[in-house]
Amino acid sequence: MASASDPNRIWTAAIVVIGDEILSGRTQDRNVAQIATWLNAQGIRLSEARVVADDAQAIAEAVNILRARNDYLFTTGGIGPTHDDITVDAIAAALGVAVVVHPKARAVLDAYYADKGGLTDARLRMARVPEGATLIENRMSGAPGMHIANVFIMAGVPHITAQMLDALTGSLEGGAPLISVTLGAWVPESEVADILRTAERDHPGCAIGSYPFFREGKVGANFVVRSTDGAQAQACADELLATIKGEGIKAQAGEI
Amino acid sequence: MASASDPNRIWTAAIVVIGDEILSGRTQDRNVAQIATWLNAQGIRLSEARVVADDAQAIAEAVNILRARNDYLFTTGGIGPTHDDITVDAIAAALGVAVVVHPKARAVLDAYYADKGGLTDARLRMARVPEGATLIENRMSGAPGMHIANVFIMAGVPHITAQMLDALTGSLEGGAPLISVTLGAWVPESEVADILRTAERDHPGCAIGSYPFFREGKVGANFVVRSTDGAQAQACADELLATIKGEGIKAQAGEI
Repeated sequence: MASASDPNRIWTAAIVVIGDEILSGRTQDRNVAQIATWLNAQGIRLSEARVVADDAQAIAEAVNILRARNDYLFTTGGIGPTHDDITVDAIAAALGVAVVVHPKARAVLDAYYADKGGLTDARLRMARVPEGATLIENRMSGAPGMHIANVFIMAGVPHITAQMLDALTGSLEGGAPLISVTLGAWVPESEVADILRTAERDHPGCAIGSYPFFREGKVGANFVVRSTDGAQAQACADELLATIKGEGIKAQAGEI
Repeated sequence: MASASDPNRIWTAAIVVIGDEILSGRTQDRNVAQIATWLNAQGIRLSEARVVADDAQAIAEAVNILRARNDYLFTTGGIGPTHDDITVDAIAAALGVAVVVHPKARAVLDAYYADKGGLTDARLRMARVPEGATLIENRMSGAPGMHIANVFIMAGVPHITAQMLDALTGSLEGGAPLISVTLGAWVPESEVADILRTAERDHPGCAIGSYPFFREGKVGANFVVRSTDGAQAQACADELLATIKGEGIKAQAGEI
């Protein structure tokens, strides 16, 4: 990536979650939330996520559209040794490159399986990468993550992806992180809708989200003020809290 | 929808999850897994899910592409009373219809707020629907779900969406439900990759997914055989279990 000449530039990423197990409802995805949180700390904003089937054409379509639209694209899932792990082949096809055995990945697997019966064809599948890819470190399993162009190929198992994100921390260029300031109030959100709208209008750099809940038999809502300028976010949240309390509503700084 | 002339026709749906709170990592989405599981029971397959921002253009683009590709489209989120709830306007624009106040939704809200100060402008926002939409029942909150063309507009809060799904149960035409049979084995999936590949090849109506785990200091994997023919799925799973056990591997019917 070229260095950012504009300090206000917004860097974006997208995620493609690959896996029939997510679309069948069998498995609850946790990688979108995990990667989104990590991206925030890198100063990169998640702009879109898609969940697609274990289908080469669906993967390639999502990858090519989203990597063109964003600075970075992350995929999760489908990099294991079994027949339904088709991510590497699908991404190589999408990028128009061959699939090759990465010598370092092969060496790692060789060492890992030296006393476990050696490298079989199935195990060797985990050393296959799109040609030109570099590896993303992972101490938990044999299958490495991969990085090629602006595409980062991660595991499906969330704690393996967590290790890969750890290895990437600080290596991606980003902008100013998005700062969030949260306040909560024991009020139906419809009661304060006008107050929220006015607060957002009066603080142009801030976006306010309203997240209602039902708890202890009562309704309430948390309000999240987001801005790349932490002082502005705090000022907007402080003013909003004062206005809501001024209506005689029980409210607090921080999440309820 | 026209009635299905082909009993083997596969009915599909897509989901558009609408919400900055999902893309920021603040909120863990649970609606994809919930709706996917419900769709399976209706004989409808979830083909794709997208998470988009609270942005009218992003919503309209995803809605129009996915509703054209699928029999049904579900959206979640953005139907509350606050300024960031733009789903109704965005979908109306995508469909090229006006936004109108639905008389029944207005009557429900009128009754609900009769002893709570009456209908304010903010509350009345929850009665706005794309012109031509019918309401989807919801006893939990003032904001109803909506159905227009092949689009089903659901809540963001998962237990409200659960109630709306309940109201829709049995009303959508679908095909044969996808049957899943699971077995588990205490083995690295790479050890049985060839067995899995052969089993899938020998049972053309079946797809086999492999889902590795790390537990109790050991690695294992669950294998899920999916087919619209329950007997075929069971036969494939039985044969796979026998073959894996025949290799001296500890394995069981059902999930580990």
